[in-house]
Amino acid sequence: MRLSEGVEWGIHCATLLALVPPPRTISAARLAEYHGVPGPYLTKHLQALVRGGVLESVPGPKGGYRLSRPGAEVTVLDVVEAIDGTQPSFICTEIRRRAPVRMPASDFALPCAIHVAMDRADAAWRDELRAVTVAELAEHVMTTVSPGSLEQGARWMQQAVR
Amino acid sequence: MRLSEGVEWGIHCATLLALVPPPRTISAARLAEYHGVPGPYLTKHLQALVRGGVLESVPGPKGGYRLSRPGAEVTVLDVVEAIDGTQPSFICTEIRRRAPVRMPASDFALPCAIHVAMDRADAAWRDELRAVTVAELAEHVMTTVSPGSLEQGARWMQQAVR
Repeated sequence: MRLSEGVEWGIHCATLLALVPPPRTISAARLAEYHGVPGPYLTKHLQALVRGGVLESVPGPKGGYRLSRPGAEVTVLDVVEAIDGTQPSFICTEIRRRAPVRMPASDFALPCAIHVAMDRADAAWRDELRAVTVAELAEHVMTTVSPGSLEQGARWMQQAVR
Repeated sequence: MRLSEGVEWGIHCATLLALVPPPRTISAARLAEYHGVPGPYLTKHLQALVRGGVLESVPGPKGGYRLSRPGAEVTVLDVVEAIDGTQPSFICTEIRRRAPVRMPASDFALPCAIHVAMDRADAAWRDELRAVTVAELAEHVMTTVSPGSLEQGARWMQQAVR
């Protein structure tokens, strides 16, 4: 079971954008530069984040991307689901119904126990991702990097934000 | 993020095999018949379960598959990892190091907070799957299907087990 690399890029972008004072934006090109990833491919994921309600895209030559709401209200799960989808990791195809034993419909009234166990694990995974916001991730970066890096980062932001 | 369909097949097979009295076995063809899935493709997954230590394969014309240990000691996670692998769902490529800001190595002494959050969710998912055994799944089936289905199932098992 593997998340797409777009998930990593998306969380990093949303975390960086949590540090941008509204209503300002950063362009896709600058976000790609900051993360060292290919611009056109990143744009695809940024657009998924817009469709998922995580980011807003501001058009025009001075445009760019910003969070659609405060970073404290954007969870990691919001980002993951915008890019990777909301479908469960386990798809139950009800193969129990294919058994050569002819079972009455009432035997299938209860959901398959395998399906239940897999869904419970999926819910635990989502609960953890829902418990972390991109504002918290951004704060973690701000409070753990060295003063010199913070200063350089602030300078980069001043140039990139528009 | 999607598990392969082999995971569903594998858990169903391990659950059925939890009902087979040791040291007896069921053939791949019978397991495929029971679950209504293509035999050769199922065999690929059964072999992954053997490699993962979940099943034993008994060779010969009277051979087949059986659990390698009591079903109460085979967790759903054992089956999932044998088929889908043990790698985490999130791969951190340390893209924070690609930032144009030149950060000292000491800034990366702490793991990336994004990586930590994703690993925590992964651990929660695995914990849930580790908490359920195939013996429990088998018991759930035995205690919830109708008496008529149980009787037919027992008849099928008598013919299939060898």
